Amino acid sequence: MSHPAKVKTDAAYPLPEHMRAWVLGDPGQLGLVDKPIPMPGRAEVLVHIDAVAICATDLEIIHHGAPAMIGGGEPFNKMFTPGHEYMGTVAALGPGVDEYRIGQRVSVEVHAGCGQCKRCREGMYTACLNYGLNYGDVDKGHRANGFTTDGGFAEYAVNNINTLIAIPDSMSDAEATLVVTAGTAMYGLTELGGLVAGEGVAVLGPGPIGLLGVAVAKALGASPVVLTGTRDTVEAVRHITAGKGLDYVLECSGAPGAVNQAARMLNRGGRICLAAFPHQPVSIDVAYIVRNNIYLYGIRGEGKSAAHRAEALMSQKRFDATKIHTHTFGLHELPTALRYAREHIDDAIKVVVTTRNAELARAVAAEITASNN
Amino acid sequence: MSHPAKVKTDAAYPLPEHMRAWVLGDPGQLGLVDKPIPMPGRAEVLVHIDAVAICATDLEIIHHGAPAMIGGGEPFNKMFTPGHEYMGTVAALGPGVDEYRIGQRVSVEVHAGCGQCKRCREGMYTACLNYGLNYGDVDKGHRANGFTTDGGFAEYAVNNINTLIAIPDSMSDAEATLVVTAGTAMYGLTELGGLVAGEGVAVLGPGPIGLLGVAVAKALGASPVVLTGTRDTVEAVRHITAGKGLDYVLECSGAPGAVNQAARMLNRGGRICLAAFPHQPVSIDVAYIVRNNIYLYGIRGEGKSAAHRAEALMSQKRFDATKIHTHTFGLHELPTALRYAREHIDDAIKVVVTTRNAELARAVAAEITASNN
Amino acid sequence: MSHPAKVKTDAAYPLPEHMRAWVLGDPGQLGLVDKPIPMPGRAEVLVHIDAVAICATDLEIIHHGAPAMIGGGEPFNKMFTPGHEYMGTVAALGPGVDEYRIGQRVSVEVHAGCGQCKRCREGMYTACLNYGLNYGDVDKGHRANGFTTDGGFAEYAVNNINTLIAIPDSMSDAEATLVVTAGTAMYGLTELGGLVAGEGVAVLGPGPIGLLGVAVAKALGASPVVLTGTRDTVEAVRHITAGKGLDYVLECSGAPGAVNQAARMLNRGGRICLAAFPHQPVSIDVAYIVRNNIYLYGIRGEGKSAAHRAEALMSQKRFDATKIHTHTFGLHELPTALRYAREHIDDAIKVVVTTRNAELARAVAAEITASNN
Amino acid sequence: MSHPAKVKTDAAYPLPEHMRAWVLGDPGQLGLVDKPIPMPGRAEVLVHIDAVAICATDLEIIHHGAPAMIGGGEPFNKMFTPGHEYMGTVAALGPGVDEYRIGQRVSVEVHAGCGQCKRCREGMYTACLNYGLNYGDVDKGHRANGFTTDGGFAEYAVNNINTLIAIPDSMSDAEATLVVTAGTAMYGLTELGGLVAGEGVAVLGPGPIGLLGVAVAKALGASPVVLTGTRDTVEAVRHITAGKGLDYVLECSGAPGAVNQAARMLNRGGRICLAAFPHQPVSIDVAYIVRNNIYLYGIRGEGKSAAHRAEALMSQKRFDATKIHTHTFGLHELPTALRYAREHIDDAIKVVVTTRNAELARAVAAEITASNN
Repeated sequence: MSHPAKVKTDAAYPLPEHMRAWVLGDPGQLGLVDKPIPMPGRAEVLVHIDAVAICATDLEIIHHGAPAMIGGGEPFNKMFTPGHEYMGTVAALGPGVDEYRIGQRVSVEVHAGCGQCKRCREGMYTACLNYGLNYGDVDKGHRANGFTTDGGFAEYAVNNINTLIAIPDSMSDAEATLVVTAGTAMYGLTELGGLVAGEGVAVLGPGPIGLLGVAVAKALGASPVVLTGTRDTVEAVRHITAGKGLDYVLECSGAPGAVNQAARMLNRGGRICLAAFPHQPVSIDVAYIVRNNIYLYGIRGEGKSAAHRAEALMSQKRFDATKIHTHTFGLHELPTALRYAREHIDDAIKVVVTTRNAELARAVAAEITASNN
Repeated sequence: MSHPAKVKTDAAYPLPEHMRAWVLGDPGQLGLVDKPIPMPGRAEVLVHIDAVAICATDLEIIHHGAPAMIGGGEPFNKMFTPGHEYMGTVAALGPGVDEYRIGQRVSVEVHAGCGQCKRCREGMYTACLNYGLNYGDVDKGHRANGFTTDGGFAEYAVNNINTLIAIPDSMSDAEATLVVTAGTAMYGLTELGGLVAGEGVAVLGPGPIGLLGVAVAKALGASPVVLTGTRDTVEAVRHITAGKGLDYVLECSGAPGAVNQAARMLNRGGRICLAAFPHQPVSIDVAYIVRNNIYLYGIRGEGKSAAHRAEALMSQKRFDATKIHTHTFGLHELPTALRYAREHIDDAIKVVVTTRNAELARAVAAEITASNN
Repeated sequence: MSHPAKVKTDAAYPLPEHMRAWVLGDPGQLGLVDKPIPMPGRAEVLVHIDAVAICATDLEIIHHGAPAMIGGGEPFNKMFTPGHEYMGTVAALGPGVDEYRIGQRVSVEVHAGCGQCKRCREGMYTACLNYGLNYGDVDKGHRANGFTTDGGFAEYAVNNINTLIAIPDSMSDAEATLVVTAGTAMYGLTELGGLVAGEGVAVLGPGPIGLLGVAVAKALGASPVVLTGTRDTVEAVRHITAGKGLDYVLECSGAPGAVNQAARMLNRGGRICLAAFPHQPVSIDVAYIVRNNIYLYGIRGEGKSAAHRAEALMSQKRFDATKIHTHTFGLHELPTALRYAREHIDDAIKVVVTTRNAELARAVAAEITASNN
Repeated sequence: MSHPAKVKTDAAYPLPEHMRAWVLGDPGQLGLVDKPIPMPGRAEVLVHIDAVAICATDLEIIHHGAPAMIGGGEPFNKMFTPGHEYMGTVAALGPGVDEYRIGQRVSVEVHAGCGQCKRCREGMYTACLNYGLNYGDVDKGHRANGFTTDGGFAEYAVNNINTLIAIPDSMSDAEATLVVTAGTAMYGLTELGGLVAGEGVAVLGPGPIGLLGVAVAKALGASPVVLTGTRDTVEAVRHITAGKGLDYVLECSGAPGAVNQAARMLNRGGRICLAAFPHQPVSIDVAYIVRNNIYLYGIRGEGKSAAHRAEALMSQKRFDATKIHTHTFGLHELPTALRYAREHIDDAIKVVVTTRNAELARAVAAEITASNN
């Protein structure tokens, strides 16, 4: 569906014909190849990727395929490029696009819904009923960058404008890769009710989403905000709240006992957002949930434009997402970067890959880290 | 807290000093005793109970205590009168009450929230944080008829006006006892979104709440509405919906596999209301819930004035709740009535106890049943 | 943007190359011309129009242009075909469309949002920020049938699948043209809260939307439902409600005093949906609105898939929309039909134009009318 | 309704039998008198008032009566004490109250709903249908401090615990009097949707609610936040937003043209909260509102526990409400304080009256003001 004649480019941002991109071969095997630069269609832009962060889900896709991919499609040996937490610079505009301009820096959220299904019509585009239907004759327009369509471990990617978020010059590349992570946490709080000033929130699981969940909750005025690891911390929460329990839990651990623990941290009428999950079925005390009027919300990412709200708080310096950025590598070093992320080498939390001078980026990051400590 | 001087009575509705009431001795033991007529306080009325239906929860309270009672209180040997699905005639008004008049027929919902806690202030009075705090020095004003305060297996009961629903003369006593049951189903649909016309609903569990859940969903225009028993019916639902799944499940079975089955009946973004629960923790596929953006709502009864909405549909004859009313007994026959309900004798679904002439009531009910068939 | 190669047709539904269509010349001037059959693009179908009803807004567009058209475009002398309350039979499928099949009968709602703007992403597609941007280089994908894109006073029209609603064989052509009218009323009630069973609703203005507003409100269990004309009926409403006022007003009259009257019909916390408006600014008692915590919702049609919910109620025969259908004409008789609608000739309420045998359709309609009386 | 036997006092906070209180004689006439200390009932506490701010509504009540008082009651010559923006120290507890402790510092919001009416049961306690019914035989339990029950221009006042908000020692008396003002702004944003991070808000009217509206909107991450006076600033807003308009307007001016201006500042689908109103009906362009899908929300104060959320943001030092506190007087100087507020003497914005040493308080305030400049 490319309309090359109508794609708008700018001599100041010359486009090569090919780009370097990592593609997935057999499970766990990535190769760096030359690929043609893709062309944006209606309501799309081409983004030059400046930086991309590694998410635990990337590791899973590379080794096992996409977790919620439907239609039977596995991404192996299809020249598929993973990577979904990226940012960059608009390099070309699809026909009719005037919402963004060439040269503009943008962060990218994952999901563009089909726009036609029942859920998209309700505004629930991360629950698009046509998830994954984006190839060939059954292209319903759904896009999930790095899940069902090519993602960010490359020099360029095409993006639906629904996935773009303009960022200011004051936001670094690395920080901008974290907008979607913060956006997922923001979406969790959005579904939980959103107005959390003065209300108690527990965040389970001190990974990137959990850590930014704490940051977003605090930025919105929640109090107290409790971050817990995987040990049983119900007693601690009960103690902190003088036995009353909290109002909300953002569950980001995927630990087997997390739902039961979360329920017991809440007061009657409390709510749990499930932003992670254990891979096996787990034992849950449904009676406790019903007797205590608890609601649970399973989410799949950064819905309801929450990434825009997260970006606004980040632009306003309400919290410093870069505190979880620990390592920087060049695009050509992706396998090393993935290993750092997977094995938590050197206490890695968020590992960022950049297409800019990686040496320089690493030096800058080290400096920032030093000044944070 | 009685203010006898200000209680308003009417010579046309003379009050005796004592009444007949069933009280709970040891677990499972009920005795019929004489009790003083209680006096209504501020925002309360005295109701002469004309009919009361038996709910599975009554059986549980009589044998094991109230399921969600807090504060350590068990109801045994405290002259406690259970029974919560009742209706009757206003017999006296507490000080300042002008919302109802003596002689008016009313149905009664279970919960009157404290009005002061965070949940009550949000309108979530069935999740009142002061549930059960209604005795002596810690009376926070919460009332749950037949759970934490005296209920309907008696000739009279005091009720907060928040629990009353005016009913028309065209509604029979027996039908009026079912308002709160239909109200629970209506509340489940309310929390699920409420606007179900043209949307698909499955109801799990063909007990009274489930059967009225089907009736309410149909009255609101839901389509299709599927009622399932405890066998695995996921395939059937998938077939009926051409593989797409439904939008909502109202889970009223409490079966161990119900949550997993419910999730698999839904499309992405679907919702489950949990109006029942298994007594033991059960294995749940949390990953399926999260990947499919499913929300779960545990409810504790007939919140958000849903019983008023249910009564409106019943008054308008949108569905015939009396179809689930199978047996009628006199108040003095309560042990027999409970046995019919517990053991499903003679295919009993809903068993009603009346303080009116039970022989006559039974004859009328038989006639109605005959004409329904 | 036609992709003829990928459009799917069916020999059983042969397409001519040209169709008869009414087009707007100078204001007030319509001409019947031959036009090429338009071809459906991605997410679009071609509909053979079987029947189209006349709305007051059509009369306005024909004489003055579209009321909310932006971007400076007036529809005169541009071969523009008005008409937006239509139904028909799917005649061809755009590339990749499998949501509908050729030969399927459908009713059509007006708005397909752009899918990219902030409002569309929220699910508020009738408030699309790209309204009217659907021509040439600034085509953002928005469509408003008969307002900004060609409508239904013709033999064929292209429609985004978002605007289609499948209808059953049991629904007549004429009834199906009223789905969008009922959908507008349903949307008004949706924005007002939706759960109106047992709550009081006043409908101001006994035109088609008002009359179907009464029908929808009753179908949802509202009580009382009061329909008023333009005379001051505040006292009557206060009397009916024993001085308490109603909960909701659906204002469909556009009368100068309607907002003030509506406010005074309500209790504190009541809500007004504005589905019509006076053409000149009017005097409004804002103090009354603020002191009484009244909310007002200005709506632009049939948003949030309300037309689907209306269709569901109509399919289930919850109300008989055909009672407001008074006259039927053939497509070639459109000017006469418009005159009947405009001048309320012969007490015309809803005038329908059909591409089928108009003589026959009139005879059938007369028969139905007779049997209704 | 006093229950002296059960009221809990503390020797560390000895209660005199009488207090000094200002009472309203004829319109505009206040007198300082001795009144008995009132005793708290169920769910009430006695608050020793430490500071009270003057609101424009106080001036209106003193001169014209309460704006939304119903039931015919005017407050003149009834020993009525006005004043509603106050804070203080809990001095005695009503029977059963354990939510607060004697000696605890609290801020006070205005409204305690009856808890029984339809609106209170929905959580909309500022729209209580029993507003003003709080005297004698028709006491429905509603309280509006300083509007329908005695308020804060005195040494003590009884308050329903629903109106109390615990404050930390780090919050000054003067700042605490502004919690309810900030709470009204927070409530406006709550009704407008609440999640305003990254969305544009205009605030009309630079009075105390407007100024704190700006502060709250910024604290929640809104951007841009525009404050306007009474001149036509539609063009400026259109310019700032590159022609797109804003998402929300908080109207606090009550200016005759404010609603029309607000509407024109918005994009399609935007929303207006009316927190002020002109005293005379004004001309409004309803057509513009309907065509642009604009919603209007008339509010009556600080509903849905918004004052708690505002207090949380203030405790966290997210904004400095004391910037609008300009003058401090002693309780005995109330007439002078009212004159400063009414005539904006010395650029007075918020004038606070204290029962503590007023000389000292003024000195402290002057110091703070100096350091702010």
